[in-house]
Parts: sequence; structure tokens; C-alpha cells
Amino acid sequence: MQYSGMIRDIRFLILCALIILSSQPGLAAKRLSMPEVLAASSAADWRPLDPENTLYVELPTGRVVIELAPAFAPLHVTNIKTLTRAGYFNGLSIIREQDNYVAQWGDPENRHPLPAGIGKVKAEFDSSLPPHMPFTRLPDGDVYAPQVGFSDGLPVARSDALHKVWLAHCYGMVGVGRDLDPESGSGAEMYVVIGHAPRHLDRNVALVGRVIKGVELLSSLPRGSAEMGFYTKTEKPLPIQSIRVAADVPAAQRSNLEVIRTDTPTFAALIESRRNRPEDFFKVPAARIDLCNVPIAVRERPAR
Amino acid sequence: MQYSGMIRDIRFLILCALIILSSQPGLAAKRLSMPEVLAASSAADWRPLDPENTLYVELPTGRVVIELAPAFAPLHVTNIKTLTRAGYFNGLSIIREQDNYVAQWGDPENRHPLPAGIGKVKAEFDSSLPPHMPFTRLPDGDVYAPQVGFSDGLPVARSDALHKVWLAHCYGMVGVGRDLDPESGSGAEMYVVIGHAPRHLDRNVALVGRVIKGVELLSSLPRGSAEMGFYTKTEKPLPIQSIRVAADVPAAQRSNLEVIRTDTPTFAALIESRRNRPEDFFKVPAARIDLCNVPIAVRERPAR
Repeated sequence: MQYSGMIRDIRFLILCALIILSSQPGLAAKRLSMPEVLAASSAADWRPLDPENTLYVELPTGRVVIELAPAFAPLHVTNIKTLTRAGYFNGLSIIREQDNYVAQWGDPENRHPLPAGIGKVKAEFDSSLPPHMPFTRLPDGDVYAPQVGFSDGLPVARSDALHKVWLAHCYGMVGVGRDLDPESGSGAEMYVVIGHAPRHLDRNVALVGRVIKGVELLSSLPRGSAEMGFYTKTEKPLPIQSIRVAADVPAAQRSNLEVIRTDTPTFAALIESRRNRPEDFFKVPAARIDLCNVPIAVRERPAR
Repeated sequence: MQYSGMIRDIRFLILCALIILSSQPGLAAKRLSMPEVLAASSAADWRPLDPENTLYVELPTGRVVIELAPAFAPLHVTNIKTLTRAGYFNGLSIIREQDNYVAQWGDPENRHPLPAGIGKVKAEFDSSLPPHMPFTRLPDGDVYAPQVGFSDGLPVARSDALHKVWLAHCYGMVGVGRDLDPESGSGAEMYVVIGHAPRHLDRNVALVGRVIKGVELLSSLPRGSAEMGFYTKTEKPLPIQSIRVAADVPAAQRSNLEVIRTDTPTFAALIESRRNRPEDFFKVPAARIDLCNVPIAVRERPAR
């Protein structure tokens, strides 16, 4: 580890040298802020959401928008859309709120029957590396995986040795609750990460998407007082009015969002703006960033 | 990074081999859960809090207990105790609640006069490495620093090359808000980390302690809708009834807590129990852990 520390120090020195070389002679380059990077973006730096793979979770406090990840968990996503379209989630509640961990919904008392065709699903915890996976790799390493970065707007980890790629448990990621049996997660119970990235769950649970907007409606709920943050009988869980597939919602009622593309020079500049934040406040730049600290920018779609 | 991935894989294989060698012939060792490790702890594995360096933040919803870190930020801690004993914080509010980032309190409208002797403080963002610093080093590296681990119950990062050590911005850590001037943080404005570890703040802000109990009372508040999570005029911030130094509180009203020591075989076993969680659920053990995922256990002090 001494060695690894020395490597880091050397890399930091090289980075400093590059920044100095790329700037005006004798002047350090001005570090850009993320708002400055985004202000300089073009329309092509953004992508719309696919309504067929977007969920709206309607709470009394507002709407949570989830982008599903069919490329990583196709069977679970199919199940979740079947459950959603059958109205399975409507009238259920947030049943678990564990501090620095997850918010979770489901039907532990089996009040709603499972629609036909929903059962156990193959454990989609990781995937074989496809031959041409889009991958914007981060330069600063990771404690848990050999490589980390972004693929189609999602935080991923991968191992060439294992020939595998998997979604990473960053803040706002959406997973499927299961019992001890790895194939027991149908999608009827889902959780959202609301704390420090619980990366030990990677490759042990199916991640199915990411909250694009409204995660604060889930993260700000009172914590449950039973074990693992479940609510007790006397605590009032927040009801879920409905979950819908965006494609089933009239266009005028849809959220009009777009997400930054993660395979562009603009996204590379965004990463750099977070590795080395503006010097007005950050006197000692981190000069590195971990996967779950990179923001995947979302905005209201501007009128064209 | 290929090389580093290979090193990780080799280390993982060595670890597996060690686990197998240390167990009954032909059987893999059972992985212990954290509750099992803690149940096997002795009284000597725990330490009391020093009432002179413990703060009670009394909210309408309950008490937040903060352990101060005078070893790392002595001038800031002195300031904070002076402010606290002058009653400066009593009647102020949580003024900022930014999702996945911080909860913050202070007096931006200068309603309370600063007590005598409170002013700018030297920027205690890191310290020179003392000759004999207690340090339980984590084996799995870190994205941001050459070395990370625990010192007297606090998550720290260090660099032998820089001859420096600093507190790390993990969930629940308490810092001192400042303006652009690095010496502008007096301690009159404080924040608590309530999201994924914002490690880019390391060495740029003074960390002064850690929430030992009650962080969920801060993390579950409604998010502020103004920029950076500040509350607007129409949002009702949660009032702070009082902040007191525990030593000034009658013994019968004190929280009776103790914290696990971080320099013992029990704590090493706790780390291991989180690197390789029980196989009943975790089919693919992480075999590694990052600094901010290690829980620093706290419990009610048992009757002796």
C-alpha cells in the first residue's frame, strides 16, 4: 500500500504538470465549476428518457422518477413493468426507512395478489461483458472493483478478469429486495439507496435502475424504529398513490426531463470539474473522484 | 489499472486461502456477522465518552450526541465549547438541509451576538503526523488518500509523503462551515454529513467531531428548496432548543453511551465481518471495504 500511495502521489504530480502545461505560460488553468460546464453544453450532450423504461412513483409529497435499466436486468425490469401495469403497487406504502441505507416499498403482508406470470427470476446480479459496451472509465480507481465508470448514464463496475460488468450501489440506485435465496426477488419489493454507497451489495442484489428526480422525497422520511429500519405497527408509513410506466401517462402529465450523456467530452469535463473543484473555495483539490460522487446531471427539457 | 485489478484478484485469492487454512480441515470458516462480533466483545473493548468533549444538540425530536475531536481541531473545539457555554446556539435553527450532502445550523442573520473571544481561527484542515499516532489501517485502499483507517474512534486519512493526517468526511462527521477565506470558520456555523461521503471536502474544511447518536434526526428533515439546500423564508426550519457540553448537564440527564475502541482485535474482527459478510445472504463477499462503510459501534453503557 505504500507503493500504491507513491503511485497516487506520482499520478497527482503528473496531473498537476499537465494542468500547468495546458495553461497560459506561468499561469495555472482556471478550474471550471460544474454549472460552468453545463452552461457550455449543447443539446446533443443530453438525451431524453425512454417513456417505456421510466417509472413515476406518485407520493402524497410529489413524484419520484426512476429510469429503468433493461440492459442490465431485463427479466426484473419486465417483471416490474408487469407489476406496475397491473396496478400492483398502487396503495402500498414505504415500509422501510433505514438511516444511511435504503428506503423500501413492498407488500410484506400480502395484501395485493401478485399478477399472473410474476414469480422467481434469475439472479441478474452481474452480466457478461458485451463486446462493445459504452464505458466512460474513471481514472482514480475504486476500493471494490478493478474498474469503474459510466455506461449509458449508469454507474458501473467491471472486471476484465471475470469478464463481467455490474451496476454499482450508488446513492439513488434502485434495487430489488430478496430473501436469502438469490432467485427470490420478483420485483414486488424495491429499495432506493439513501446513504453512503453500500457497495457490498454489488453482485448480491439485482439493481434495476436509478432515481432521476425526487430522491429527496424518499431520503427525508422518518426512519423506521424496528430492526433494519422497518416501520412498526404504530408508525404511519407514507402511502404510494401509484406507480406508472411513463408511456402509460398522458403526455401532458409526463415529467419533461433529460439526462446528460455519459460518453461525451462534456461529461468528461464534468468529471474533471468535480475532481478539481474551483479554487475559490477548494484550496486543496482532491485531484480524484470516486464513482458515487460523480453527479449525473438531469434538467428540465428546454423548449426547442 | 489492469495491474491493480490483478493485484486485487491475487489478494482476494490469498484471503480465501487464509480463511480456508484457518478453518477445520476441508471446511470454509463461517463468516461472522457484526452482531456476533459485538456479542463476543468484552467491557475492555468499549470506552466511555469524555463529557468535556461531548455535545448534546437538543431538538424537538430528540437528542443528537456529538463527540468532539480536540486532537485534530483544538482551536475550533475550544471555540465551539465557548460558543456552546455562552448559550450561543440555543434558539437557532437547522438552516440548511441539502440532500445527499449536509445538514447545517448557524445564525446567518446575526441574531445572536458572538461571545467575546470568538473570531477567525487557524485553518485546522490537517495535522502533522504525530510520532505515535494510534492507527488501525484498512487493507483495501482508498480513492482519495494513500492510507485510511481509524484513530481514536475517528475515520482518518494520512499521507506519509506529506507527513500529514486528516479527518475524513464520512457520514455523520461534523464540520465547521466557512466562507471562501480558509480562516473564516469560527465554529458558529456547523454541518453534519448526511449523504455519500463528500471526500473532496477533506483538507478544505475543519472537521471537529462525529455524531455518535441521533444522526437520523438530522438526515430525515425536509430538504431546503433554496440553492445548496438552504431553507427559504416560507419553509419552517427545525429549531435547536439548546446545545450543551455534556459535562455541564446533570449526570442523571446525560446519555449513557460507550463507543467501541478502534485499536483492538475486536474492532479488527468487526472490520472483517463487514469485508466478508455472512454467506447466508452475501453469496459474493466484497472481500474489501471502504473507510466510510465501517460502522463505529455505539451502545448504551451496561450496568456494571
